[in-house]
Parts: sequence; C-alpha cells; structure tokens
Amino acid sequence: MKLKHLTGLSLLAPTVAFAADRPNIVFFIVDDMGWVDSSVAYGEEVYPNNLRYNTPNMQRLASQGVMLTNAYACPVSTPTRTSLLTGVNAAHSHITNWTSTMRDTPSDATGGAVAMMQSGANHDKSSRFVRPEWNLNGMSPVEGVENTLYATPLPQLLKEAGYYTIHVGKAHWASAGTPGASPYNMGYVVNVSGNVAGMPRSYLSEENYGNTPEKWNYLAVQNMTEYYGTGIHLTEALTREALKTLDYPIMHNQPFYLYFAHYATHTPIQRDPRFVQKYLDAGMDEGQARYASMVEGVDKSLGDLLDFLEDKGVADDTIIIFMTDNGGNAENKAKGGVRFMHNLPLRNGKGSVYEGGVRVPLMVKWDGKVAPATRVNTPVICEDLFPTILQMAGVKNYDVVQSVDGQSLVDLVTKGSKLAAKAAKRGQITDQKSANAFVVPQSVSGIDPSRSLVFHYPHQWKPYDLVDIDFLSAVRKGDWKLVYRMRTRKLELYNLKTDIGEKNDLSALYPERVRELAAELSAKLRGWNSPMPTVRETGKSVPLPDELL
Amino acid sequence: MKLKHLTGLSLLAPTVAFAADRPNIVFFIVDDMGWVDSSVAYGEEVYPNNLRYNTPNMQRLASQGVMLTNAYACPVSTPTRTSLLTGVNAAHSHITNWTSTMRDTPSDATGGAVAMMQSGANHDKSSRFVRPEWNLNGMSPVEGVENTLYATPLPQLLKEAGYYTIHVGKAHWASAGTPGASPYNMGYVVNVSGNVAGMPRSYLSEENYGNTPEKWNYLAVQNMTEYYGTGIHLTEALTREALKTLDYPIMHNQPFYLYFAHYATHTPIQRDPRFVQKYLDAGMDEGQARYASMVEGVDKSLGDLLDFLEDKGVADDTIIIFMTDNGGNAENKAKGGVRFMHNLPLRNGKGSVYEGGVRVPLMVKWDGKVAPATRVNTPVICEDLFPTILQMAGVKNYDVVQSVDGQSLVDLVTKGSKLAAKAAKRGQITDQKSANAFVVPQSVSGIDPSRSLVFHYPHQWKPYDLVDIDFLSAVRKGDWKLVYRMRTRKLELYNLKTDIGEKNDLSALYPERVRELAAELSAKLRGWNSPMPTVRETGKSVPLPDELL
Repeated sequence: MKLKHLTGLSLLAPTVAFAADRPNIVFFIVDDMGWVDSSVAYGEEVYPNNLRYNTPNMQRLASQGVMLTNAYACPVSTPTRTSLLTGVNAAHSHITNWTSTMRDTPSDATGGAVAMMQSGANHDKSSRFVRPEWNLNGMSPVEGVENTLYATPLPQLLKEAGYYTIHVGKAHWASAGTPGASPYNMGYVVNVSGNVAGMPRSYLSEENYGNTPEKWNYLAVQNMTEYYGTGIHLTEALTREALKTLDYPIMHNQPFYLYFAHYATHTPIQRDPRFVQKYLDAGMDEGQARYASMVEGVDKSLGDLLDFLEDKGVADDTIIIFMTDNGGNAENKAKGGVRFMHNLPLRNGKGSVYEGGVRVPLMVKWDGKVAPATRVNTPVICEDLFPTILQMAGVKNYDVVQSVDGQSLVDLVTKGSKLAAKAAKRGQITDQKSANAFVVPQSVSGIDPSRSLVFHYPHQWKPYDLVDIDFLSAVRKGDWKLVYRMRTRKLELYNLKTDIGEKNDLSALYPERVRELAAELSAKLRGWNSPMPTVRETGKSVPLPDELL
Repeated sequence: MKLKHLTGLSLLAPTVAFAADRPNIVFFIVDDMGWVDSSVAYGEEVYPNNLRYNTPNMQRLASQGVMLTNAYACPVSTPTRTSLLTGVNAAHSHITNWTSTMRDTPSDATGGAVAMMQSGANHDKSSRFVRPEWNLNGMSPVEGVENTLYATPLPQLLKEAGYYTIHVGKAHWASAGTPGASPYNMGYVVNVSGNVAGMPRSYLSEENYGNTPEKWNYLAVQNMTEYYGTGIHLTEALTREALKTLDYPIMHNQPFYLYFAHYATHTPIQRDPRFVQKYLDAGMDEGQARYASMVEGVDKSLGDLLDFLEDKGVADDTIIIFMTDNGGNAENKAKGGVRFMHNLPLRNGKGSVYEGGVRVPLMVKWDGKVAPATRVNTPVICEDLFPTILQMAGVKNYDVVQSVDGQSLVDLVTKGSKLAAKAAKRGQITDQKSANAFVVPQSVSGIDPSRSLVFHYPHQWKPYDLVDIDFLSAVRKGDWKLVYRMRTRKLELYNLKTDIGEKNDLSALYPERVRELAAELSAKLRGWNSPMPTVRETGKSVPLPDELL
C-alpha cells in the first residue's frame, strides 16, 4: 500500500493563496434532517412541515447567506460523505451504500448480514436480485485496500495548503480495519469522535452514549467520557468539543477548516430534554416531538457556533456551509407521524432517489462575497462541494488521484447571489414562481442549470421490500427527472417545476424526453461502470435504462 | 464552575521566549515498566534483570542524553500522572491512588467496589482501616468538581505559550463525567485515545483492543478503529498515530509538546508477536516472555520516534524525556517469574513505597545542552518535571492556581551533566561507587541533594492484604529512607547507598535519624493535610509517624 497521503506533504505541493486570502471554513453537516425539517423554507412556499419546527439559528444563517434551494445529496449517508471528501459522484466512486462498521461486511439487505442483524428482521429470501459489487469498505486515502475508492481527500489538500483541519462528530467514510476509518488519515489534524460509526448508540449521557455493559455495540460514541452521566445531550457535548478545537488556530491566526458533523438527527430518535416539551404541548406525538427536539438541538449548536465565531472576532472571515447528508428518514416508525409522509410535499425520504430522499438544505454564508438573504435555484449536488471548498480556500492546481465529477459553486454563490439580490430588488420575474428565486445563467456561474445530476441506489435498504427505495436510479436535468425502477424495469418521468411531489408520471406523454434522459443516465452509469444488481434467476446484470427502450 | 482553562487564552498570558528558543519536547512515558526492566542499567552495576531485556533504542537514548539514576515516581499511575500535570506531590494533591473509570467510585480495596469487581476476589472485610477521604475523581482544570484537585495543567500553559500540544495514549488523570477526563480540557490541541482508562482492555487488534461484544468494558481502547483486525499491536498503532500528529507542527515550524503515554507495559500481559520468540528461546516462562516482548515493543516505538524526528530534521531541536509512571508490577501472576522478585535488587514493586515501587527510569536528551552518555545521581521526583518542562519551553512568570512542590531540573540536567562528564573524563572519584555517577552540588543545580522526597499510599491496593504495599508512607532524604507501616505502626530505616534492596532495617541503630525523618515526613503530611485512613474500631485517624515516638 502506498502511504503517500499519510506521511505529510506530497512532493508536488498545491499552489496556495496568501494567508490573507484564506478564509476559515466551517462545514456544518446534519444527519438525516430533511429539506422541510426546519423553519427555514427552502421551497417556493412555506410548507406545513416548516411550521412544525423551531430553528431560529438556521433562519439567522439564511438571513446572512445564500440558500441553494435545489441542492442534492445521495439517498444515504456514506455516499454523500465520501462524495464531499472526493468530489466523485457515488455511481462513479462505487460507494453507493452505507459502510458497515466492520470490514468486508456488505450493508445490503440483499444477502447482507449487517442490516439483518441490526434490524432483527428476517432477510427477504424471495429477492429477485443479488447485491451488486460495490466499494463496501468505503473510501481509502491509501492505494490497494480491497473494495475501496482510492482517492485524495479534501482535508488532506487543505492541510497541505496550510489549513488547520478539524473533524468533530460522525465520519462514516469507511469500515474498521481500513485507513479510511480514521480522520487522521484523511488529512485532519484533530479528530473528536469520528470513526466508522454511522449513528450513535445513544445520544444520552445517562447511557454514556452507549458505553455501558447493557448498551454497548460498535456504535457506542468514542471520545466523550468527560460527559458520561452529566445530563449533557450528545449534540451539546459535540458542540462544546468543536468550540474547544478552534482555540489553537484562532490563537495562531491560522486558517481553519472545521468539518462539524452532527450525529443528530439520525436514529435513535431520543428526546433532547432541553427542547422537547414545547413540541409535545403543540400536539405532536412522542416520536415527532423527540425528532423536533433533536432538530432544535442542532439549531442551538449552530447558534452557539455562530456566537462563538462572533465573540472571537472571526465571524466575518469564516465561511459557513450548512447542509444535510440525505433526506429525512420517513421509514423509521420511531419518528412518529405517518410513515413516508414526513417530507411532504416531497415524495418518500432517506434511501430513496425521489426528492424526499435526496433534496437537502444547503446554505452558504460568506460575508462580503455572498449577498445575504438570497436564494439561488440552480440545481447542485454534493460532489460540487469538493472543488467549491478548495476554491474558497484558494487552493489551485492540486493533484488528486481520482477523477472529480463536481463543479465549483463559488461563482454561483457569489456572483449568482448578487444577481439574485438585484433581481429581487427590481421585482424582476424570473422563470421561478418566487420573485427572489433565481436560476443563475451559466455565463455567470459556470454551472449549466440543465446539467444531469445522477442518483443511484442499486441496493435493498432494509430486510423487507421498500417499493420507492430499493433498486432505483434517477437523473435530474433542468426541470425534468427520470426515475428508473429496476425491480419492475419501469421508467417514470416527472416535471419538478410543476410537480415537486413526483405524483404525476409523464412518461407516456413525453416518450422523447424519456428516451433522452434514459440515454443520459445510461451513458453515465455505463461510463462509470456503476454497480448494478444481478438477477438471481438468470445471473445477468439488471439492464441499464436505455436497454429497455 | 469556572471555565477559565477551557476557553483559550487567559487574560494574563505567560511570558514567552522567542520561537527560536522554544525547543520541541517529547515526553515519552511507559506504564508499569520497572527500573531494571531494560538493557539500560540505571544502577551502579548491571543487574541480572538488565540482562533479560533487549532495548537498543533506550540504550541509544542513554548514549545521547543524561540518565537520572535516582528518579522517583509514585507507587501507582494516576498520582504520578497528575503530579506531572500539576507539579504537586501526591500527598499534597490528595490524589494518592488511581482513579476509577466511573465518577465517585473509590478504587480503594478498603470499602471500594471497583477493585473487587475487577479482580473478582472478595473484599477483605477484616480490614482494620476505613479508606481515607482523597481526591478520588482525580485532577480537574475546572473549579468546583467534587473530590478533585483543581489545578492549572502543564499543557494548558504550554499551549498558551504557543506550543502545539499533543496527547497520545493513556491519560488516566480523572474519572468519567468530570472535565479532567478529556485531554482537550487539559490544554491539549490533539488527543488520540486518552481518556479515563488506566489500562487497555486488550493490546490485540484481533480483539479490536477490547471493542468486541465479548470483551468490551470501560477499558476498551478508543480511537483505534482503523487497526481492528489488522494484526497491529496497540503499541505499534499508537506509535503510528503519534507520528501522524507531528505533521502539522513540523509543517508549520511550530514548537510541539508531545506527551506520548504508552499503555504498555501495563496488564493485560499479552504477547507482542514481533518480539516474543527470542525470549521464549532464552528460557523465559510464558509470562516473562510476554512481558519482555511488550517492553521491546515500547523500545521499538521509541526508536521509530527517534528515527522520524531525525528524518524530519528536527531531532536536534527536540528534547526527549523518557520516564515510567511507577515501578514494575511484581504482584501480578501474569508476568510469570517469582512474585515480588521482578524488580531485584529493588524491594517489591508497583503499589509499594519501597524502591521497587517508586524508583523509575528517567533520561533526558537535549542536544547541545545536556552532555551525552552521562549519569546524575541527585534524587529527583515526578513533580519536578512540571517546572522543568516549563523552563525548557521558555515559559516564565506563569500563573497557576495550585501550589507547586516540584523544582526545575534544568540546571541539574544541563550544568550537572556537563560536570558529570568532566568528572568522568578525569576519572574523578565522586561519593558514588561508579566513576561517572555524580551528585551535582546544590550551588550548580539549585537542587539540594538531601531534600526530602515524600511517598504516600494510605490505601489498600488489592482486595487481599499486601504487607509491603498497603498503607505505607515513606520519605527519602539523601542516602536515608524512612518507611512508615501504618498497619503495624512501625518505622523502618534504610541506607540506600549501602542497601538499595532495603533489607536491613537500621531503625534500632539510628534512633535519632528515625526521629529526624519521622519529623520531616510528619511535617509534610500534616502541612498538606494528607489523606490518612481511619481505624475502623476507634473511628480515629491513623497517627502520623511523629506521634508514635
């Protein structure tokens, strides 16, 4: 195995801007929090779900930066997180599902052992598909690790460019026994708590975050002994840790990159006692109130961070990127409410390529560069953040071993937000319903508003069939979206501008559009040699969409 | 609770030397490795035990620096480690025993629950003593935490002075649920693995260092997921982590303080497969060979570190301090051999105030300042390292909330080692047997070679009686040592110059000397209000030594 990325500076150091041009960057990422799960309305109207949540600090951030209202991630956690690390689309990296804690252990419910154990349910033996070959050990900064994507990770480049790189919270890029398990191998100089766990065993200090003889499993949260039994919720504990880690770079006036990845609001759905009562009083059921309290806990954390940066006098020099890793979980009964309806108006939720699974909150605050309180509607996707953050940091001409799919959003959020602000001021009507919602011309942003964004989930998520989740692929192009259902070999077509809920399949009405999008999606999957399941009966790969037509 | 030490710079920043005058400092501390447990002979002759071990890198270090041949620690781990952190003698800090993983849980076998559970043995209900009140939650950088010593920790002062402070390995200063549990609260900017654990659940990657459903308890090693199942011994894994953490400060030419605290050679006594065979072939029993392989693992780690610093071109600018936290464990049967004989010629071992429990290896390499391959015999004690390291780092006029007992050893190791080198060259006979062993005059070192060094263990170590360990105090003054046995209320007197094995009690021959030392010891314990056990029958405190005379 090559150890290039583990031993400090590579020979070809990237070109770096002067220190003064290097802003601090905080990437604040929330887990499993859906697009409508806050009082910030990313949609063109305020949806009923937005009224359920109290997130004043997310609103504060929205008032200071730009909202990217058509932002996408992958259906599940690891693919999004590794795309952020590498700039590679999940269908291209072959990290299309979440990584198990232990090495060489497929998380697929199709023939996979882990999901069965963890859910306690029986494996669906009637499945028609055999799981695909994919990079089930996740991402590796070291070459030659079986079933991993070998890639140069973002924080390594930032570290080499002089950034003080901090990891706090959930990592979940790789399985145990591989280098990708440790943030220290990814270019982080500080790590609090990040490892192979994709969720916390417990958020409660009363349960030592899972570190008790009764509760322990591989998901027990590490590095948190000081908080055991203190009554401090994990979200708050991580926040305190994150603020501590900023001491050194602020003292030394060194640019920092803080990747602050909350475990919340992933399952287990447990009360945050600071906030739960108001939601119960508002008539929510226990599961809904617990979840809402977890969302508000994250909001409080964001507010504490913003306050801290202001107190330290570095808020103006610090870019904040706020995002979540996939859509809200609409399948887990612990969240209360009505199953699969949690993300309305969006269809379905986490795990799915429908909007409920992949459309996510995304905001960027960048004082002096981004026009505040603006909205940009150009579709963007998680792998775009890789080149975006490097450009923000002034890192140019970098060498990476992977082929990057993402495009920098810097011009989109800077020039684009300013155009949007002007348009809103003039009351100019754009091609969107909302006056200040604005698709930025490609000539300004460098981003084609009609480029294809690919979503690919060739897996069975749970040990029971989920019709709108398992074995789906999709492509969004402009206002149009094609969904490929591998089980039934059906293609569906939606117009997101008129039908954000993906209720009306227009494929019969627009066969040419279907053909065009099927060709786009198939070309991508074929070119990337993307994982596809095998039909158990025939031993043959499931066909690509254009092979159906 | 005051958060002064958790929120960055205090208002009164300490005076700091220019960067060029700030050497890097590595504090390399080994656990439970005794004074004779290496091929480096700290004694005035090579003892049979020295021949059992193969530690070429410790020899390499000895050839580059000064050996402090009369160096002392406390009988057990936490008191030594908190003395290093604070400069306070254990009898003064009231941290006289090891801290339990969980808060408010006395580790005393007298009425304590933890030791009973962990050993599986029954509590000695016949004990005549009730355990003393002591700071059983350890050290706290925050005021107001029950049963802790509130103190300003060394790395906090170093961090405020501009040092990049790194913690790798075992911390063990405090119990869970208190701020002292986390190195991040002690002024470290990076922490790998340090928490409340005083030993590892397992050294073996095959057992995930204790992180398996079968093995897990609170001692399972955190932050090591990347090595699970890789065949990499914990000692090697921690070494790799330590070297990674040095990347950032070396890249940025910032002075670093690396506190590298191996879990080895603490129990569990497990083979290091890289080294064990030669010891079996040499005729050791299984336990002895396992232990010797663990010692050589640590030696390899030291060598890798020295190599790394040389490769990076910073070896000349880096002070290395090598030490262990207490004497070798002579009580645990897993180490093979003959119980209580492991530290010969020294009496007893870990837990005891006899020389086997408290006399420890100590070496300092400081190129250009310390004369290489020298020996200094002036008695020194762990709390001396606190002011020593601050002086090495050029930190002056610092404010601390505790009252520091230690004295800086800088003049002793610099001027003293040079005097020793000259004396050796001239073949000058000193007052020691060995020609190059040298007690440095106080006028040169600032250290009175006859100052009193106090050891205090008012505890029952194990749930069964250990005559030469439980409930003992001692004072060393010059060549003389007084041992106070609380159970029998007897005072023993030894001359260490002629009787390093403490075999011949001279108390009957030198009653005046006994009276003098008893007065010294009592004055210290009285002045510090040191913890003393209570006699169960009478409810009264065990008397101080001078109350017996």
